[in-house]
Amino acid sequence: MNLSVRSSTPDDMPAVLELIKELAHFEKAPDAVEISSDLLKEYGFGKDPAFKCFVAESDHEIVGMALIYFRFSTWKGKSLHLEDLIVKESMRGNGVGKALYTKVMEYAFENKLKRVEWAVLNWNVDAIEFYEKTGAHVHKDWYIAQMDEAGIANYLRDQK
Amino acid sequence: MNLSVRSSTPDDMPAVLELIKELAHFEKAPDAVEISSDLLKEYGFGKDPAFKCFVAESDHEIVGMALIYFRFSTWKGKSLHLEDLIVKESMRGNGVGKALYTKVMEYAFENKLKRVEWAVLNWNVDAIEFYEKTGAHVHKDWYIAQMDEAGIANYLRDQK
Repeated sequence: MNLSVRSSTPDDMPAVLELIKELAHFEKAPDAVEISSDLLKEYGFGKDPAFKCFVAESDHEIVGMALIYFRFSTWKGKSLHLEDLIVKESMRGNGVGKALYTKVMEYAFENKLKRVEWAVLNWNVDAIEFYEKTGAHVHKDWYIAQMDEAGIANYLRDQK
Repeated sequence: MNLSVRSSTPDDMPAVLELIKELAHFEKAPDAVEISSDLLKEYGFGKDPAFKCFVAESDHEIVGMALIYFRFSTWKGKSLHLEDLIVKESMRGNGVGKALYTKVMEYAFENKLKRVEWAVLNWNVDAIEFYEKTGAHVHKDWYIAQMDEAGIANYLRDQK
């Protein structure tokens, strides 16, 4: 297979959005995707971009993506978050995921970042096994708390 | 109690570092803090800052802090991460934590962010109960994976 991984351009965002929707379906939340490819273009490629995205390409088709941004650890310093790593379902098992994962680690290494962090669903045992094999530590003692837009507004109203 | 919450300045960073160290001790990892107050000044207050920090002050003493930065949800859009919310141990139970938490939610609201996210240790039941009462959703089906600096270098060496 002819496979290459490169930084994405604004023109890749419609294909990236398709991958995001595919992952939402896999994670059993197909209606949760509110983003549009125009917003991806705006947030990813303006002044002060909110993320960087790598795409995997095979025969001029985008078959995977990894989306990252900086975080900051108060213990270690500047770090990286891997928000999504998605491989098109029909292309799984061809090393696309590993090529993207390696690209992310290279980016972290080149930018002297202290850590790469990401979340994985606890029932996604194949992914967990892969991550641990590569040397990542999968923490089972943290919960992820989220307050959504409506929750923020409700909470603030209650404080008045 | 005379309490106010404000954006931090570089001069607050030594006191902020003390709070970071106090939290590391509470989380049973007292030796994990590698950051210095000089690095906090550099990362937080240069061009393109890596974080924003609020401090709670009582009688000219810093008694708590909340450290945040932007993230990006591929489902929702621009969001906020609450990396640390720390109250000096001797000042707990005085509403300092809630005042900082409210400030963070106000910041998210004013900046039209789609979500605030943070991590909580699964044995920190008082915190979990507080978060859920405020309307946050605590997800118990995600693990947090981390690859540290040494792990990144090892992994990349193995790929060659």
